Amino acid sequence: MSTKLFLTVLGIVLITGCSKTTTTVTNISSLQSPDGKNVVEISITEEGQLQYSLSHDGQKVVLPSTLGFELRGNVKSESLDYEGNRPVMSDNDPCYLFDRGFEVTGFRNSSFDETWNPVWGEESEIRNHYNELLVCLKHTASDKLMNVRFRLFDDGLGFRYEFPSGQPLVYFKIKEELTEFNMAGDNESWWIPGDYDTQEYEYSHTRLSQIASHFDDFMRGNSSRTPFDRHGVQSALIMKTTEGLYVTIHEAALVDYPCMHLLVDGKTSGIRTWLTPDAEGWKGSLQTPAKTPWRTIQVAESATEMLASRLVLNLNEPCAYEDVSWIHPVKYMGVWWEMIAGAGSWNYTDDFQSVKLGETDFNNAKPNGRHAGNNNKVREYIDFAAENGFDALLVEGWNIGWEDWANCDKDYVFDFLTPYPDFDIQALNDYAHSKGIRLVMHHETSSSVRNYERHMEAAYSLMNQYGYDAVKSGYVGDILPEGLHHYSQWMVNHYLYCVTEAARHHIMVNAHEAVRPTGLCRTYPNLIGNESAMGTEYQAFGGINPGHTAILPFTRLNGGPMDYTPGIFEMNLKEWCGNDSHVNSTICGQLALYVTMYSPLQMAADIPEHYKQFMDAFQFIKDVAIDWSCSKYIYAEPADYLIIARKAKKDGQWFLGGVTDEQERSFNISLDFLEPGTYTATIYADAPDADCYKNPQAYTISTIEVTPQTTLPVTMKPGGGFAVSFEPKKQEDVCPSVVY
Amino acid sequence: MSTKLFLTVLGIVLITGCSKTTTTVTNISSLQSPDGKNVVEISITEEGQLQYSLSHDGQKVVLPSTLGFELRGNVKSESLDYEGNRPVMSDNDPCYLFDRGFEVTGFRNSSFDETWNPVWGEESEIRNHYNELLVCLKHTASDKLMNVRFRLFDDGLGFRYEFPSGQPLVYFKIKEELTEFNMAGDNESWWIPGDYDTQEYEYSHTRLSQIASHFDDFMRGNSSRTPFDRHGVQSALIMKTTEGLYVTIHEAALVDYPCMHLLVDGKTSGIRTWLTPDAEGWKGSLQTPAKTPWRTIQVAESATEMLASRLVLNLNEPCAYEDVSWIHPVKYMGVWWEMIAGAGSWNYTDDFQSVKLGETDFNNAKPNGRHAGNNNKVREYIDFAAENGFDALLVEGWNIGWEDWANCDKDYVFDFLTPYPDFDIQALNDYAHSKGIRLVMHHETSSSVRNYERHMEAAYSLMNQYGYDAVKSGYVGDILPEGLHHYSQWMVNHYLYCVTEAARHHIMVNAHEAVRPTGLCRTYPNLIGNESAMGTEYQAFGGINPGHTAILPFTRLNGGPMDYTPGIFEMNLKEWCGNDSHVNSTICGQLALYVTMYSPLQMAADIPEHYKQFMDAFQFIKDVAIDWSCSKYIYAEPADYLIIARKAKKDGQWFLGGVTDEQERSFNISLDFLEPGTYTATIYADAPDADCYKNPQAYTISTIEVTPQTTLPVTMKPGGGFAVSFEPKKQEDVCPSVVY
Repeated sequence: MSTKLFLTVLGIVLITGCSKTTTTVTNISSLQSPDGKNVVEISITEEGQLQYSLSHDGQKVVLPSTLGFELRGNVKSESLDYEGNRPVMSDNDPCYLFDRGFEVTGFRNSSFDETWNPVWGEESEIRNHYNELLVCLKHTASDKLMNVRFRLFDDGLGFRYEFPSGQPLVYFKIKEELTEFNMAGDNESWWIPGDYDTQEYEYSHTRLSQIASHFDDFMRGNSSRTPFDRHGVQSALIMKTTEGLYVTIHEAALVDYPCMHLLVDGKTSGIRTWLTPDAEGWKGSLQTPAKTPWRTIQVAESATEMLASRLVLNLNEPCAYEDVSWIHPVKYMGVWWEMIAGAGSWNYTDDFQSVKLGETDFNNAKPNGRHAGNNNKVREYIDFAAENGFDALLVEGWNIGWEDWANCDKDYVFDFLTPYPDFDIQALNDYAHSKGIRLVMHHETSSSVRNYERHMEAAYSLMNQYGYDAVKSGYVGDILPEGLHHYSQWMVNHYLYCVTEAARHHIMVNAHEAVRPTGLCRTYPNLIGNESAMGTEYQAFGGINPGHTAILPFTRLNGGPMDYTPGIFEMNLKEWCGNDSHVNSTICGQLALYVTMYSPLQMAADIPEHYKQFMDAFQFIKDVAIDWSCSKYIYAEPADYLIIARKAKKDGQWFLGGVTDEQERSFNISLDFLEPGTYTATIYADAPDADCYKNPQAYTISTIEVTPQTTLPVTMKPGGGFAVSFEPKKQEDVCPSVVY
Repeated sequence: MSTKLFLTVLGIVLITGCSKTTTTVTNISSLQSPDGKNVVEISITEEGQLQYSLSHDGQKVVLPSTLGFELRGNVKSESLDYEGNRPVMSDNDPCYLFDRGFEVTGFRNSSFDETWNPVWGEESEIRNHYNELLVCLKHTASDKLMNVRFRLFDDGLGFRYEFPSGQPLVYFKIKEELTEFNMAGDNESWWIPGDYDTQEYEYSHTRLSQIASHFDDFMRGNSSRTPFDRHGVQSALIMKTTEGLYVTIHEAALVDYPCMHLLVDGKTSGIRTWLTPDAEGWKGSLQTPAKTPWRTIQVAESATEMLASRLVLNLNEPCAYEDVSWIHPVKYMGVWWEMIAGAGSWNYTDDFQSVKLGETDFNNAKPNGRHAGNNNKVREYIDFAAENGFDALLVEGWNIGWEDWANCDKDYVFDFLTPYPDFDIQALNDYAHSKGIRLVMHHETSSSVRNYERHMEAAYSLMNQYGYDAVKSGYVGDILPEGLHHYSQWMVNHYLYCVTEAARHHIMVNAHEAVRPTGLCRTYPNLIGNESAMGTEYQAFGGINPGHTAILPFTRLNGGPMDYTPGIFEMNLKEWCGNDSHVNSTICGQLALYVTMYSPLQMAADIPEHYKQFMDAFQFIKDVAIDWSCSKYIYAEPADYLIIARKAKKDGQWFLGGVTDEQERSFNISLDFLEPGTYTATIYADAPDADCYKNPQAYTISTIEVTPQTTLPVTMKPGGGFAVSFEPKKQEDVCPSVVY
């Protein structure tokens, strides 16, 4: 069927745009999700603008929204190359709008249904089931081609732009991506301020119309912070419509493209993309054939259904590695929290006002007595971690340069190779390995990105030499060279380069302060963690409002796991080490995070001395699995509460956990997720007088016998939570009388 | 003697500044050159501004000129670090002037006299003889310390800023360097426009007052051009005073600091520094202890004396390498000029509109029939180069990616590893080595700097594997990431990184489009060449005005050798390959360049077919040495003419060469530079009817017998030159009757 014929059989409607002028809009195609509930309508305006809208079960979610770009280059043709036969860009080329003047040259419909097995994850099987529509466009004035590929799932919509090869558009720079998500109403939203350099913010909960006026509510210090507009927020952005639908806007498969932010028009509830610029303000440099990341709109009828959505993972490419045998979940401890809290230091000495690597002599420097990453302490941690069944131990501050690493714009800030005199890298790794522990490498780059890349091959080779198989990297402070941002295309390229280079060395990567994940761990499963949100460290930087961990699974975790570093047992940092900040959680609130904050990389972040005071509670951290065959989202409301059950991939054991915000909450939990049988449930619950501020260490541990028919009542105290492990009763326990 | 005591014994004078206000200036010290002719006066103004002035033999060269900076940070103290004990920078810190408010806290005088031997050069011994004065300053308001070190030579002044350690100034960003060079008069000057990205300009010859109005005179296309101000010019800037002194402003030892430009106030003849900014506009990021490059003011009573000045080399550090046995001069040919002229192509195929490395399949692509770097042609070049005694052969376009390498903002533009299907890297290197030829590697980066660094180790290792020991690198087009400039600190750091990384592989570097040299080849003698000026290639891009090669030795070559790529014999490019450009030189003008344009890396740039037509003239290129034990500058005037004689380091043979601009010029040359004896002089001279435009290939070759007492008359025709080789007559020639 030709395009023209197709157009004639579809209806023509007149809509009134915001500008009060009437424009003719022609519906040209539509797409339904496999279950028929989600419907996308595709239309084109009189001006040749492609629009889409999205509804769920008859409820409008996204009103007609325009797609396109503003690009650099002349409309008719860019400059030509030396031979005069290939369009290239010139600095003098004006920009032009590439969101109108299109004609539709074709459609292609298809369907897809597969089930795939992640290397690690919240479940062992994920169904990837969608109907697809490819809309092929030609920009009439320039003959330039652009396609838009829509994939409609039961849990929402993904679409991306594709620029085919063999056309007049070859190399181009993006002035702005003009993708619209025009919301059907003034939705409730949970958001953090748009920022080119950090996601380390607490969430605000307002209507879309209130974002600009609440933009500063949770501003706080960060070593690199670049908010760009009071109407700007970051993705994933979760919203709730007046009809009660949950809607999340995010992106999937962010590869060699700037990170997407969202600009919200509070008057119209219109949202549009706002990309992260390079140092000259350009927002992406592409070469055809090219494709953008997927723009995703997840839709769910309940918050728990939203948590179960795997749309972002499904829109990523399958695993890029043939051999994944070297990738594994990691439960670890770290010589870390004591530096974060201020009880110890990363740096070895106070002798130097500043350091120049290669010139400063550490061997003859006087130790400051506070350096945490030293031989004795590391051995103590290894002992404790080994005794309690951990896989690994992170040691920060092991390498020279921490005396003046941050905020100094030092290009050669670390070499990632030279240990401090009191860190015997050979002996400590040998000792760790003798106890079944791997050390986790730490590469803080101080955002001196070129310096890291210059040393990366040697640094990864050093890891191979000593038997490290995982690295935590960090990007604290402004990016060097100056003018670049953490979330720019150049940096997005860098983060993935680190992951693929690490893969060549069979190294797993946990990158902090990098761009927030977009499901790339499906393709590159050695990316076992990211930070990219406000993590536990902020409990030592002024505290975190309860409820933060009840929003993260909806937003930050949508694209991939977070190294949230839970497990703090000593909340009174002042008493411990004089830090005025307070950890706003109960011990059971911390235990719950091992279930509610999915990650294949889970830390027990507190120090051994604090765990030793509560070994009965610590038992849950020892027991809990970190890789799952299935997950059940039982109760949830963003930023309020979460209750999740998960089944261990290794042995099928179930665990249950829940967190609440500053409100006490009680639930009755049906244990119908359990397989038939009888279980001993060990319940770690906030004590009746527990409170994250006033009495955070009060808990009870009880053991009861349960079956799938049991309804378990739980109460979470303010800022608290609970955790449950289920041990199947052995046959001899159920039938104590054995017949010979 | 205390500072205060010292001050009292010096005079106090009142001068009237430009602002018509009177300020009290106190002379605080002075310095004389070893021969007593150059005198520097150091003074401090009432406002605490340090000033210097320079005179030569009583003639004022530089009037009192202020020294200092504008820096980022509060005057009193910058922000403090986490522990509150170390000043760090904040984006919110305002800038402050660091060129006033100083008190002098001490002086230190010293003298130095050594003779050192360069690994290669215009002579085998260089005397480094100066008197030094260190002026120690304290910024009263902030207790920040800065020293200025002056070194006064017989051939001029060098001074630099030094920031000692252990003081309140630790990390800082430079808003601008405020060094003044206030000229005593409206000097004649030979200059190219100030530009952050290229030095590929022809020179203008105007008074300082006329620079702004002539700024556009020689503007022409370049793949990356960023002039910043009509009053801006580049260094080395050579001037001639009304008294006839020659004065050159340049810099020495540019390491991890932005390249210096000069801003000229045409009304006052005041010149001040203007550094190359980073993407945010900052002009340098430093950490104490730190030092700037040397600012140099060479002074000479004649143009030939200026050519003999080694001040810039002397201000660089001694050789950094213990073993320099692998560094050697190179006379080479190249598969290059035919691509530059348009007779061949760098790219292998015309199949692809654009290339994506790793995806594009070159093995099944159709060759375009014009690809010059192919097995057959390379073998022909190897044969010719070997037959004629060359050391090496450059091959450009050997590696995949040239189909769309320029002006496309491609990050992954080259891999520096994968040859085109018709370039058998193993076989060609084997063949070359069997004939005593080394291939010269080519690394065009297309200014995708991170991509080059990512591949550098593998690329240098590939060179080691196949026996390459020299690389020509290139930085065509705008720097990636966007917003950075070729001459910024980040790039200056990169160029030196390439050189020191290459040294680890025993590789010599010839970097094109990199920052112009500042004598670093003394310290890193594997930096055997740079382009960083308009070279021969522009003869194929519209032609170069005669006289260009008569200015370059005063300006561009002041800091180090240039890979000018002389030796073009076929000037009519139109007839050869349809290129409308004409090579504006005579064949003898080309021969002369091997003597007048010193470089340890000399190319015979034309193609074998053209040389084969003029093998008698080509004989000079075969004969001429490329490393010298001494050099004599006989006649010279910037941009007009140059006559230089040099003695080969290897065997003591003398060579003589001269070039002229568009004017015919005749000279009588005393051969008194020759050692006693009789010589056969082979004279390559422009024919009487030669002319660079109309009759460029007309020459005569004559042989005469000469002694040191001979005066040799030479005539250079418009755009022409001459060359002479001197063969000592053997004893049996002088005394043919042998007595047994």
